[in-house]
Amino acid sequence: MRATTIHAPGDIRFEEVPDPRIEAPTDAIVKVVAGCICGSDLWPYRGHNDIDAGSTIGHECVGVVEEVGADVKDVRVGDFVVVPFCHSDNTCVHCRAGVQSACTGLGFTTSGQGEYARVTQADGSLVATDGMPHEKLIPSLLALTDVMATGWHAAVAAGVRPGGTAVVVGDGAVGLCGVLAASQMGAGRVIAMSRHESRQEIARAFGASDVVAERGEEGEAIIAELTQGVGADAVLECVGTDGAMKTAFAVARPGSTVGFVGVPHGVELPVRRMFQKNVGLAGGMAPVRRYLPDLLERVLSGAIDPGRVFDLTLPMAEAAEGYRAMDERRATKVLLQP
Amino acid sequence: MRATTIHAPGDIRFEEVPDPRIEAPTDAIVKVVAGCICGSDLWPYRGHNDIDAGSTIGHECVGVVEEVGADVKDVRVGDFVVVPFCHSDNTCVHCRAGVQSACTGLGFTTSGQGEYARVTQADGSLVATDGMPHEKLIPSLLALTDVMATGWHAAVAAGVRPGGTAVVVGDGAVGLCGVLAASQMGAGRVIAMSRHESRQEIARAFGASDVVAERGEEGEAIIAELTQGVGADAVLECVGTDGAMKTAFAVARPGSTVGFVGVPHGVELPVRRMFQKNVGLAGGMAPVRRYLPDLLERVLSGAIDPGRVFDLTLPMAEAAEGYRAMDERRATKVLLQP
Repeated sequence: MRATTIHAPGDIRFEEVPDPRIEAPTDAIVKVVAGCICGSDLWPYRGHNDIDAGSTIGHECVGVVEEVGADVKDVRVGDFVVVPFCHSDNTCVHCRAGVQSACTGLGFTTSGQGEYARVTQADGSLVATDGMPHEKLIPSLLALTDVMATGWHAAVAAGVRPGGTAVVVGDGAVGLCGVLAASQMGAGRVIAMSRHESRQEIARAFGASDVVAERGEEGEAIIAELTQGVGADAVLECVGTDGAMKTAFAVARPGSTVGFVGVPHGVELPVRRMFQKNVGLAGGMAPVRRYLPDLLERVLSGAIDPGRVFDLTLPMAEAAEGYRAMDERRATKVLLQP
Repeated sequence: MRATTIHAPGDIRFEEVPDPRIEAPTDAIVKVVAGCICGSDLWPYRGHNDIDAGSTIGHECVGVVEEVGADVKDVRVGDFVVVPFCHSDNTCVHCRAGVQSACTGLGFTTSGQGEYARVTQADGSLVATDGMPHEKLIPSLLALTDVMATGWHAAVAAGVRPGGTAVVVGDGAVGLCGVLAASQMGAGRVIAMSRHESRQEIARAFGASDVVAERGEEGEAIIAELTQGVGADAVLECVGTDGAMKTAFAVARPGSTVGFVGVPHGVELPVRRMFQKNVGLAGGMAPVRRYLPDLLERVLSGAIDPGRVFDLTLPMAEAAEGYRAMDERRATKVLLQP
């Protein structure tokens, strides 16, 4: 098949690779209908993560089941499925506790920007729709495989409550989905930190009541003012850098929790401040499968349209341009079609 | 008055200092009936914290109200009172949210190992008993001013639930009180990490079902075995060192929370592990006043006897020996009488 590969920082190709195949009886092969580029794909692209030269890249996709292993019972060939970026059996001790991202048989989508993807633990991972969804729903369904579930996880981890004030640090696709999640959970005020006009617009459409364009201490001071010096009831950290984390803790009120979902890079947690202010930290890699049935229902009912985060659609063959566009912030999130 | 002072690392004296006096109309002066030495007093004693040479030391005491400021309404001269180590008005936005340790008018007891102590925000801070308590209750009432409330806070922050497994890292007075708290909250299994026989005995009396004497990776491996490889449902970190924190995160199951109450010294939080395993951190300086009415009731009813953590009683004039005894681990916690 043809798939997107990474050879070195900045070196993205779309080329022939071996077809993925059933390796365990619990596997399924999905023919990709749509894949996309994640903000976290930019870490290796920018040289911040190690690269296995020539390996496929991409952990988000939706598609149609092409083949299943002998032990797969619930998913059938021909089903349209949402593929969580992390695969889980949904029956182990950690899955039963709602932490599917720590499944004892954890797997990951590794060729979501290719023509086919192998899904391990297919029965536990995949969620099928009733028949083929309308084409216009594809972007929102694709968003459920990672960014929407991840933003939702940030809001859950931060303890967003009806009527409370939530601050979202980060205006990437996950941050924007965090705004949508906090809004869906009934936060009385959702403050989005965003410098980019196009993203501010999506944030407002997703329910942000306030947008703060300033960063660092300047932005923190504005949020202090907006919250009468108290701080936010819940903070969603959706970036993963030290600066974002510092801002998250600076704007969190005593006794609150920072929900973090950005893969941490160079983060040093302010443990003394956490201690003095009783500000906790919760979150991590999102247990996508836990939220998927609920989020799917919200998409199908039209309650949420997280697909709005996609502002560029390209053929997979032009994946390299998609990476450039995201790297240069010309695009928030890029959808790739095979 | 005479009070315990610190002049340099290892240099503890009991000497004449100026009497504390009413400085604000919300202040009260308490004649100390019993004070004690806290594990955190050992930080400056050992030279790990800055010292203001000649300053009084000691933040835990119970006693009788000697004098009150003009605005004090609820506390009366002659009342026997439990003095939370941190003073709070109990009415500000943070107090109302249950984070009295972040009160906008936060104060601290500073001469709890002396004959008199000034208490700011007296109405919001002090909790009086009905009449003079029996002498045998004094140690347990004294424990409520810090260590018992702090251990309780660790258990609350860690989210101890009925039937769950709790691990307590640290067998100082706070750790032992954490065992008692987890047990009171109905944890099905309380695993105390303790190397010292006398402390193991108290831990068992406080409800520990298991005692693990091993530390570091060895101790972590034993707890992994005790929890069938799953990890603990809740972990109480009651030390404040990097090693204790590492162990706490190593034994916490995915999706659980480490409740931390040890003042952090040299702690580097394992943010990548926290992310990958979805293990959160919550806690900090205990909002003693929040828990005090409930804990006082438990002491008076005989449900808890946290005073058992005191294993050495000395006259205040021998405070220096008390510090030595705790520094050399000859005593778990030292009660000082004026």
